[in-house]
Amino acid sequence: MPTYERLKGFRDFYPPEMAARREVVDTVEDAARRYGFREIATPRLERAELWTDKSGDDIVDELYAFEDHGGRHVTLAPELTPTVARMYAAKSQELSKPVKWVSTRPFWRYEAVQQGRFREFYQTNIDVFGSSEPEADAEVLATAADALTDLGLTTDDFEFRVSHRDILGSLLRSFDADVDVIAAIRAVDKSEKVDENEYLDLLADAGLGYDEAREFDDLLGVTDPANLDELTDFAASDGLADAVENLRAVLAAADDYGVGDYCDLSLRTARGLDYYTGAVFECFDATGEVSRSVFGGGRYDDLIEEFGGQPTPAVGVAPGYAPLTLLLERADVLPEAAVSTDYYVLQVGDTREVAARVARDLRARGHVVETDVSDRSFGAQMGYADSVNAETVVIVGEQDLADGNVTLKEMSSGDQTTAPVDAFPGEFDRPTYDDFA
Amino acid sequence: MPTYERLKGFRDFYPPEMAARREVVDTVEDAARRYGFREIATPRLERAELWTDKSGDDIVDELYAFEDHGGRHVTLAPELTPTVARMYAAKSQELSKPVKWVSTRPFWRYEAVQQGRFREFYQTNIDVFGSSEPEADAEVLATAADALTDLGLTTDDFEFRVSHRDILGSLLRSFDADVDVIAAIRAVDKSEKVDENEYLDLLADAGLGYDEAREFDDLLGVTDPANLDELTDFAASDGLADAVENLRAVLAAADDYGVGDYCDLSLRTARGLDYYTGAVFECFDATGEVSRSVFGGGRYDDLIEEFGGQPTPAVGVAPGYAPLTLLLERADVLPEAAVSTDYYVLQVGDTREVAARVARDLRARGHVVETDVSDRSFGAQMGYADSVNAETVVIVGEQDLADGNVTLKEMSSGDQTTAPVDAFPGEFDRPTYDDFA
Repeated sequence: MPTYERLKGFRDFYPPEMAARREVVDTVEDAARRYGFREIATPRLERAELWTDKSGDDIVDELYAFEDHGGRHVTLAPELTPTVARMYAAKSQELSKPVKWVSTRPFWRYEAVQQGRFREFYQTNIDVFGSSEPEADAEVLATAADALTDLGLTTDDFEFRVSHRDILGSLLRSFDADVDVIAAIRAVDKSEKVDENEYLDLLADAGLGYDEAREFDDLLGVTDPANLDELTDFAASDGLADAVENLRAVLAAADDYGVGDYCDLSLRTARGLDYYTGAVFECFDATGEVSRSVFGGGRYDDLIEEFGGQPTPAVGVAPGYAPLTLLLERADVLPEAAVSTDYYVLQVGDTREVAARVARDLRARGHVVETDVSDRSFGAQMGYADSVNAETVVIVGEQDLADGNVTLKEMSSGDQTTAPVDAFPGEFDRPTYDDFA
Repeated sequence: MPTYERLKGFRDFYPPEMAARREVVDTVEDAARRYGFREIATPRLERAELWTDKSGDDIVDELYAFEDHGGRHVTLAPELTPTVARMYAAKSQELSKPVKWVSTRPFWRYEAVQQGRFREFYQTNIDVFGSSEPEADAEVLATAADALTDLGLTTDDFEFRVSHRDILGSLLRSFDADVDVIAAIRAVDKSEKVDENEYLDLLADAGLGYDEAREFDDLLGVTDPANLDELTDFAASDGLADAVENLRAVLAAADDYGVGDYCDLSLRTARGLDYYTGAVFECFDATGEVSRSVFGGGRYDDLIEEFGGQPTPAVGVAPGYAPLTLLLERADVLPEAAVSTDYYVLQVGDTREVAARVARDLRARGHVVETDVSDRSFGAQMGYADSVNAETVVIVGEQDLADGNVTLKEMSSGDQTTAPVDAFPGEFDRPTYDDFA
């Protein structure tokens, strides 16, 4: 008898854990739904060129790519963006703008497995296409903040560190027009993970002198939006002034949207991915206990065009459930990992027909109802009812039925009472022990 | 600028179509939920051996299989059963029986693309493990029937053709102990798709004489469970008598479960897959307009053991959404492909802060609420509100606000009225034009 192993970095979710996970996903999706993000569904497999043509080696080396039976180079998608860019480009004329899409699904990257990182990982992607206004950035921030507060998190639990790619780029170019902006921004992204000398070396590799690198890093230390003038005073360029104005406008819109308290100016938050173009942000555990970024987002105005569409501004966020679960655990608000059952209809003797009718009527009222499908004893059925956390057990026994009754047992208290079988559930939407005691 | 194509046999679901699809999936999942099936989630990628060790060539030739970066032979899962068998075997001791699992996800097979058949296809798998009683079979039938009637289908729309693998097997062995039962059952499965001579040839290939083949097929014509005695009269074997008794018990339980009307005895419904062991059924369009089977299910008592678990009886069903959609379309009950929006909060002039507060308060009441994130004109915003089927537009204009008002426009009638901004939404859970007119 062979036994088969699950692949490393892939997960099985059994019902108790899945119940908690479903509650988290539903909460995030519901926040997006209320903001008018519309669900889409997308292929899990795409042409590998969607990544090999444009992505950095980091992503390409981690692809689950192969050749299909038709000789196509295909890959399991490691992220959603190229797919939605392809979808947007295919129907851009007929789509009503702004386009606001949401979807939850797994992605795959062959990378080292560690806490909160798997090879198959689930994200909810939330994106606005077709608006370059700061309100679109703020709406994405507000949706993410509402999702987190709906999950029970507070201002003490999380913060959005907000930065701006064009501020970083304009500052860098003000030192030296030839600086490698992408390499320097990657260095900033790593600044908290490496020691200072290594960080300065990385900036030097990108083309800054060491004094310039220190000066640049000092400028990134500003935390009060009012002090962003220090940057424009330091380097007068239209690009920098526009970027500072845009970042202030995003933060002001986030204030109007009621989520300003969650947003902290943090220019050193650079986001590793190359394709961001404007405001970017990362969500962190405000206590620092979960040290890694929980998720991030930002503006990527060039990407739709790169994938063959008309030039289209875009901004989005993609909470991932493995790191989010770490934050919810830390804050002690992860939903309980347990299944729930409204009624177990227990059969004693030859009472299947009545028990089935009772179960059916309770299900018609929307409840979760189980009954015996294993021909088991009273005790075995009661044990099962307990194992699925049944709130009420409806005992349909031959003797009770002869008297025209069923028995209701409230599982939390153990109290029981009889109810007339012909009136059960009858007029009651959700009959309990109390209705008949 | 390159453009990228979607892979053949894979689909993009844009919001209107996805809204309809979500309603269908939610309805099926909700039926399963009410019967106490518990959601699980499973890896999309598995070791290829899960299929190459046991499955027929049909499935193996269609696998999206490849070698991962670690040299493992892996495949996109073409079906759920081996995965749940693996999961069940891994935790069989601690799982409370019966185990009742449900999950909705895509599967992949590289096969010819045609109407209602794709290379990436979505199913909801609904399975009971650990009960060999007819009530478990009936519960699966009842769950499927409830899902379909919840979708708006009636007895005029669909029928479950119910058969039994052991009846077919016992009958076949009664002709000749050496008959190739699996080949003969595959022939029965094809009987409606090929002409009579070809069907008889296939039965002959499986080891029946031509007269025996005709006699066998005649016996399968019984449609009234009361007439199943003709079979036991024809061939007296314990296996056949037990199988007939079991099938009658399943149909009787389905009656008690309130879904007997949807079940038709149809022994020629054999199910192509080799692993079924007891009662099997297929759902068909009762009008015949959709000619192919919509979905099927049945008992597979040997499979968990084959995948390394303890011997465990099992029965399940797996509605697939592509063929189900064909049936819903035929019956004219496919949900409308359209997004819905409760409120659009329209801004005229510099009213963002108030508009954002109104939108936020409406969202807090659970509604789908959009507002302008693109700095657009009154007309452009109204056009957008119309495009997302907004029920009510809340116009937040500078002049109205100076008088302390907002304007509510009911989109279906075009009627509008004012409401005091300080009392909006105020005490109302779902304020409409009528509340203020």
